[in-house]
Amino acid sequence: MTNFKATVHVSLRSGIADPQGLTIERALPALGYTGVSGVRVGKLIEFGLDASDATEAESKVGEMCERLLANTVIESYTLSIVDESEDLAGRES
Amino acid sequence: MTNFKATVHVSLRSGIADPQGLTIERALPALGYTGVSGVRVGKLIEFGLDASDATEAESKVGEMCERLLANTVIESYTLSIVDESEDLAGRES
Repeated sequence: MTNFKATVHVSLRSGIADPQGLTIERALPALGYTGVSGVRVGKLIEFGLDASDATEAESKVGEMCERLLANTVIESYTLSIVDESEDLAGRES
Repeated sequence: MTNFKATVHVSLRSGIADPQGLTIERALPALGYTGVSGVRVGKLIEFGLDASDATEAESKVGEMCERLLANTVIESYTLSIVDESEDLAGRES
């Protein structure tokens, strides 16, 4: 068993309204920051995971995304699995 | 003016309780996924930004983080500024 570091980026699919992003986009000009467009707010979930290899880790995290971490009707996810400092695998939904 | 793509990762400082992360960490074993540890949930904010160069873009986004995007008492942030496909600048708080 190796301990991998998993990073999952869950973001709203394009076309799905992002009220948090809109709020930021409206607040920034009020603070004097212009030229900001297309603000989107997603979640970044990081955790440690025991798995025998990177392939198993990637497949487990993919399942976790489908079943718990993302609502795939309105959200898409990107995951990356890192063993220590080496980037071993990445996948997009 | 160039249009840059800014990506800001806002995460809770270590030592600050992360109830969302704890909930995920407790839910995963119930779904049959073991060996998961240290779940932390952060925000990933992405937007377009007009600036004359990458240095100006980086400094503007840094200020936005300090003033609006992050609560620096309990959160830290990492930002990256990309001009088209090239990674030009990165900074951590």
